[in-house]
Amino acid sequence: MPIHLSTSQPDFDARFTEMLSMKREDASDVNDAVAAIISQVRAQGDEALIELTARFDRMELTADRLAFSKEEMAAEIARVSPEDRAALTMAANRIRAYHVRQMPEDVSWTDPEGATLGWRWTPVSAAGLYVPGGQASYPSSVLMNAIPARVAGVERLIICVPTPGGVVNPLVLLAAELAGVDEVYRIGGAQAIAAMAYGTATIRPVDKITGPGNAYVAAAKRHVFGRVGIDMIAGPSEVLVIADGAQNPEWLALDLLAQAEHDADAQSILITPDAALARAVEAEVERLLPILPRAEVAGASWRDYGTIIVTRDLDEAAALSDRIAPEHLELCVDDPEALAAKTHHAGAIFLGAWTPEAVGDYVSGPNHVLPTARSARFSSGLSALDFLKRTTLARLTPAALRDIGPAAVRLAASEGLSAHGLSVSARIDALNGDPS
Amino acid sequence: MPIHLSTSQPDFDARFTEMLSMKREDASDVNDAVAAIISQVRAQGDEALIELTARFDRMELTADRLAFSKEEMAAEIARVSPEDRAALTMAANRIRAYHVRQMPEDVSWTDPEGATLGWRWTPVSAAGLYVPGGQASYPSSVLMNAIPARVAGVERLIICVPTPGGVVNPLVLLAAELAGVDEVYRIGGAQAIAAMAYGTATIRPVDKITGPGNAYVAAAKRHVFGRVGIDMIAGPSEVLVIADGAQNPEWLALDLLAQAEHDADAQSILITPDAALARAVEAEVERLLPILPRAEVAGASWRDYGTIIVTRDLDEAAALSDRIAPEHLELCVDDPEALAAKTHHAGAIFLGAWTPEAVGDYVSGPNHVLPTARSARFSSGLSALDFLKRTTLARLTPAALRDIGPAAVRLAASEGLSAHGLSVSARIDALNGDPS
Repeated sequence: MPIHLSTSQPDFDARFTEMLSMKREDASDVNDAVAAIISQVRAQGDEALIELTARFDRMELTADRLAFSKEEMAAEIARVSPEDRAALTMAANRIRAYHVRQMPEDVSWTDPEGATLGWRWTPVSAAGLYVPGGQASYPSSVLMNAIPARVAGVERLIICVPTPGGVVNPLVLLAAELAGVDEVYRIGGAQAIAAMAYGTATIRPVDKITGPGNAYVAAAKRHVFGRVGIDMIAGPSEVLVIADGAQNPEWLALDLLAQAEHDADAQSILITPDAALARAVEAEVERLLPILPRAEVAGASWRDYGTIIVTRDLDEAAALSDRIAPEHLELCVDDPEALAAKTHHAGAIFLGAWTPEAVGDYVSGPNHVLPTARSARFSSGLSALDFLKRTTLARLTPAALRDIGPAAVRLAASEGLSAHGLSVSARIDALNGDPS
Repeated sequence: MPIHLSTSQPDFDARFTEMLSMKREDASDVNDAVAAIISQVRAQGDEALIELTARFDRMELTADRLAFSKEEMAAEIARVSPEDRAALTMAANRIRAYHVRQMPEDVSWTDPEGATLGWRWTPVSAAGLYVPGGQASYPSSVLMNAIPARVAGVERLIICVPTPGGVVNPLVLLAAELAGVDEVYRIGGAQAIAAMAYGTATIRPVDKITGPGNAYVAAAKRHVFGRVGIDMIAGPSEVLVIADGAQNPEWLALDLLAQAEHDADAQSILITPDAALARAVEAEVERLLPILPRAEVAGASWRDYGTIIVTRDLDEAAALSDRIAPEHLELCVDDPEALAAKTHHAGAIFLGAWTPEAVGDYVSGPNHVLPTARSARFSSGLSALDFLKRTTLARLTPAALRDIGPAAVRLAASEGLSAHGLSVSARIDALNGDPS
């Protein structure tokens, strides 16, 4: 049974805070195992990858078979149906069109003192994407990670995907092809992260690693962070649906279940000022659950973390949404833009009843890699910016240095950094004709 | 004696790689101590802060004296000389003017299918800045951290600065005032990071923590990452100066020493195609070192990590710069813009002989919090963007959903996520007049 709250309950705030602080993830400590794997890959390179893949993925590889060959890629991709190919191609095109708009401009200006200031953006040279194997080997995630990298101008883009027992999802390879990935390796786990961060004889290292993975992959990403850049460490996913009384309960129930079917740790929350709608949606969830192939997962998520909150009005709903800072926020209300303007913290907002969250997982265009577990308070979804970095630029004229330099000399003295001060004053002295 | 390399050496590449992989930081393992401090602050709140401040900073505090009062702030700030105040005010104004330009626009468009897409930026609600105590309590760092946060629109901005034995740098408090900081607490170390991340009775928690600190502070930031956002973990600092033969050796020597005086772990590198200039700069460094108050620190850094590389030409210098990915890149050459265009990885570029790096530490305007230890390959300096997050927006019309929705249904089926598919197809069925 889901959690039922109402803002008119006298102890609502305590109950809401308790709901917010539920621990949904069992953070198993795999750090020691991961550190050992990383050390082994650093020491033995390809040989370690072959040994670990035999152990974990029941695959006998050789160094020259770590990567999929062009022929192997083509043979797998040929198995994709024309319908699936068309759908994936549409998704790739829409995701590309959205992310192209994110590309920032370089900026430069000269201020009244004569300092020319600005910044420029340059892409990361090489990026590596991790793709899980098995059930969670999602072609959509390949597009969502690889396309922003390619849009940003990353020169070399590689994928590591484990293929336990030799099985690979052909749609994953097609997605890699559509996104313009350069190399695909059939390795996974912490060993794949280590190989991408440190390199081996076969796999040249990259500068940035993104993509989801299990506890080993997440721990390995934390471990190599600093050596390379990483994206966020994804936690369990959540959706918050805010609905007014005029909504279709079946659609809302399906939106809640779409989140719940991801993972038993996922959380689906409905907030509405209409108690009758709340009851109707809950009944629809119960009706629909048994017909889902993933009923067990979705049922566990709904039973353990599903939450229904009845508020006095939509303003209260918006205020609660900001405290939740949801990964996905669906606004199924008459004027979704007005309600969106009252919220401040969300990874992605889906406006109106015709924008189910699931369409955003695949084809609407925005990225589906989004901040989970309340981190939308301080972070953003994946974008082209994650594969770019900004270099600040400054050029002073002699007059500008004479104008603003003395303040730097003064502040350097106050911080006890005399060479800082001298490096400025020696130049100003020369301008002033002081030969000392 | 610094490291001497020349690209004409037959084993140059091996030597250069060795120089690049020198470990400059002694990463002492303070994780257990930090974990204990964080647990104590979470369990005991203010009481823990008082106890730990007595132990580490030799200060007897009470809960109502954790924060500086308005009167205490004013009394300390009154001690600042008018000259220092003027210099700090100029720095604040120039830093603000630069960072205001970083503010991104919200974007929205409607595509041919009828999907209205875009994103919006919103500030982090509350940010906390850590400022070290003692010698490294730099007012310039307060400006560089606090001003971007205020420019981004952060509502509540707090500082934690330890005041060992009760001593505080009045310029730090003035910088806080100039930057518009709301609350200043006299606590430091891992306990300050824990208080900002988890909150106590006196200190409300924040969403993002930035600012430099010692090994305990760095470990604590890593520890609370995820609960709150953090900026990068700063490593030892470095400068790369690329110079042609026409440069003033004294100025270049001072630029190298300005980096070296920060820290014995800092690294100063000169690359030039002119062997005579290289010798002249080295001689100037030796001549100037003894006159520096921080000669011991600067000498240790120069002796252990200082590097001079003679290249065949400036193109080679640019290529080496990209392999170093320096935090600070000074281009003291005839056409610095042309050379800058040949480099791709640097935190900040200082163009031409009249733009010493030190002017950028204080007053030129760009941020001095920059990616160290080769992380400019994948990350950027601090900016207003670090205190903003982006929410993606999507609104589909019924026609748009009918147009692009079927591809989502198809892909959801391929990923085995049936509720995802049903949440889209139920709406399309309704549009098509199918009452099932």
